[in-house]
Amino acid sequence: MSLMNKIEGLEVGYNVPAAVGMDEADIQTPCLVVDLDALERNVIKMGNLAKEMGVRHRVHGKMHKSVDVALLQEKLGGSCGVCCQKVSEAESFARGGIKDVLVSNQVRDPAKIDRLACIPKLGARTICCVDDIDNVADLSAAAVRHGTEIECLVEIDCGAGRCGVTTTPEVVAIAKAIAAADGLKFTGIQAYQGAMQHMDDYDDRKQKIDIAIAMVADAVTALKAEGLDCDIVGGGGTGSYYFEGASGVYNELQCGSYAFMDADYGRILDKDGNRIDQGEWENALFILTSVMSHAKADKAICDAGLKAQSVDSGLPVIFGRTDVEYVKCSDEHGVIADPDGKLKVNDKLKLVPGHCDPTCNVHDWYVGVRNGKVETVWPVTARGLAY
Amino acid sequence: MSLMNKIEGLEVGYNVPAAVGMDEADIQTPCLVVDLDALERNVIKMGNLAKEMGVRHRVHGKMHKSVDVALLQEKLGGSCGVCCQKVSEAESFARGGIKDVLVSNQVRDPAKIDRLACIPKLGARTICCVDDIDNVADLSAAAVRHGTEIECLVEIDCGAGRCGVTTTPEVVAIAKAIAAADGLKFTGIQAYQGAMQHMDDYDDRKQKIDIAIAMVADAVTALKAEGLDCDIVGGGGTGSYYFEGASGVYNELQCGSYAFMDADYGRILDKDGNRIDQGEWENALFILTSVMSHAKADKAICDAGLKAQSVDSGLPVIFGRTDVEYVKCSDEHGVIADPDGKLKVNDKLKLVPGHCDPTCNVHDWYVGVRNGKVETVWPVTARGLAY
Repeated sequence: MSLMNKIEGLEVGYNVPAAVGMDEADIQTPCLVVDLDALERNVIKMGNLAKEMGVRHRVHGKMHKSVDVALLQEKLGGSCGVCCQKVSEAESFARGGIKDVLVSNQVRDPAKIDRLACIPKLGARTICCVDDIDNVADLSAAAVRHGTEIECLVEIDCGAGRCGVTTTPEVVAIAKAIAAADGLKFTGIQAYQGAMQHMDDYDDRKQKIDIAIAMVADAVTALKAEGLDCDIVGGGGTGSYYFEGASGVYNELQCGSYAFMDADYGRILDKDGNRIDQGEWENALFILTSVMSHAKADKAICDAGLKAQSVDSGLPVIFGRTDVEYVKCSDEHGVIADPDGKLKVNDKLKLVPGHCDPTCNVHDWYVGVRNGKVETVWPVTARGLAY
Repeated sequence: MSLMNKIEGLEVGYNVPAAVGMDEADIQTPCLVVDLDALERNVIKMGNLAKEMGVRHRVHGKMHKSVDVALLQEKLGGSCGVCCQKVSEAESFARGGIKDVLVSNQVRDPAKIDRLACIPKLGARTICCVDDIDNVADLSAAAVRHGTEIECLVEIDCGAGRCGVTTTPEVVAIAKAIAAADGLKFTGIQAYQGAMQHMDDYDDRKQKIDIAIAMVADAVTALKAEGLDCDIVGGGGTGSYYFEGASGVYNELQCGSYAFMDADYGRILDKDGNRIDQGEWENALFILTSVMSHAKADKAICDAGLKAQSVDSGLPVIFGRTDVEYVKCSDEHGVIADPDGKLKVNDKLKLVPGHCDPTCNVHDWYVGVRNGKVETVWPVTARGLAY
């Protein structure tokens, strides 16, 4: 930290974009900025919706990878715990004080299974998914070796086309193997329909989820007939939670993006045909960027390119502006069409990222802002922990 | 580091994917693996090519963001220094021992200008680009304030459509302002044609570069008439270095991707119509990934998704395999078509990333491998330092 700059009496180092108390205008770009008021309203709202529907909300921590955001979701949104996709994320959340952690994914590598079995020692209920009966013995051996318990959900592929089994007999067979294994506990079903979350039309999404709910209901009934009760029937995302929540089949939601929102999710429509970022959820996450060149009259170049975001789901949208448009992205530059020459060098813009999850994963910090001031700087705790 | 695993007697923590001496088979996935033999051959070859053409090679450090790779390029490839795109990267390279650092980009934010002016105190020659005469006074004031010297290149936009001026009179005007400013030195021209690097056809690329070379030659001549000599005329990338190198106008190349290669660059063709990853350069960078689910007979799910790579330039290619294909990418999963059921859970695959630069930027470590063993683990020194 040999290169520090004094800005308004606070030290900002070469690898931290802001300091608490700093004016929003002094934040170093590009970086992630969180509108704390908007985040808190989103979190409280989803907590209330889950409560009204009579289901738990296990927030998806893989979206933000932040212990601080997860603790906020617990405090203000009443979340029952966290789900995440990697053992390393689960370790981060457990160390950070989350007491109930689900790896909503398969854990197959021997070293990862061993680490998973150690997470209960950090004080967290530890749950993972299983889609292959061959996995049961390995999980069991690790739990026994460490004297811990791993709870297991059988994962159903209800349309996402990734991990998970697709028939009730497979679900029952794996569940019975789990229930019979030392160190493991059969806890229920994981069934997330990821492929439909971003379908624009509400009725199209409902149709896909109806199929998923029917698959899950069939499995739950068959398990019950074998004496296997599901403590958790989990799934649901920002584009579908109202379906799962009202299904009478699911009892835990797993929404992630609702808290931050992004441009791709924002485009989907609610049941009245309105974009979900126009009333249902607020944009709380932004990439703050600065204009660094305006050598051409109709084009501004900003400092947020591919290394400040993921463009897999489209380019970012400039928040609150219709006169300028982010039109092209290269490694360290964004090209902004500025037909009327409205922008000048060092102007700052807030970009709504195309896809929040992988965008958060390239940043080390969330700069939390309220009333024009930096209120907090949160680390992206599990950033880069891909394994 | 409370959760460590002993693998072959070496400690691997939850945030380091490998340890020196480990068998390649035990590396935790997904992570970046570097074939050290291939990297060294690429580096030596480019060094020799630059030498034969009688030009310097200032390697582009923004690609790898690694002090270790930059030092290797200096030692084995005779590079004259590093270029990079961000002040934070320049700080990282200067602290790491690189003595000649060019920020091949505009530096406009006051705090960043201040930091730039401090880099000479780290022992490095410090160069940046200018495309706006209004920038000169700010750079000069910072250099004077810190008692240092910032060398400046005037950036010409020779086709990339980002930063840079487009006419010789603008170049001359800015150069004269730099030459007249305290604390600054006029050092030459930056002219990188980024937009043509990935055009498949050699002759198409040549046509674009011929235009760039003519623009630059005109500017160099006009500057000379004003008594302004260009110590550096810099540009050139992996898809064009032979043109700039043989131009008699450029004297410094700035190649980056040649060292690691990626799938998108690999597809472009050399003058004989051969892919450049089939003879000219070797794939030295891979995303190592494991199969984590094979619940469907014809489809394997691997653990490298959007958080292990950037797919802006296309999906990764599975190295050395034609029987299986990476066909879809979500946040933490890759879907691999496995029509003949060749793969099984925990099999490892090497993916050639679509685009190396932003892929390196999501990882914290390069695992350097030779002869089946982990020889080194290098930090991605400037990872995430986007500002």
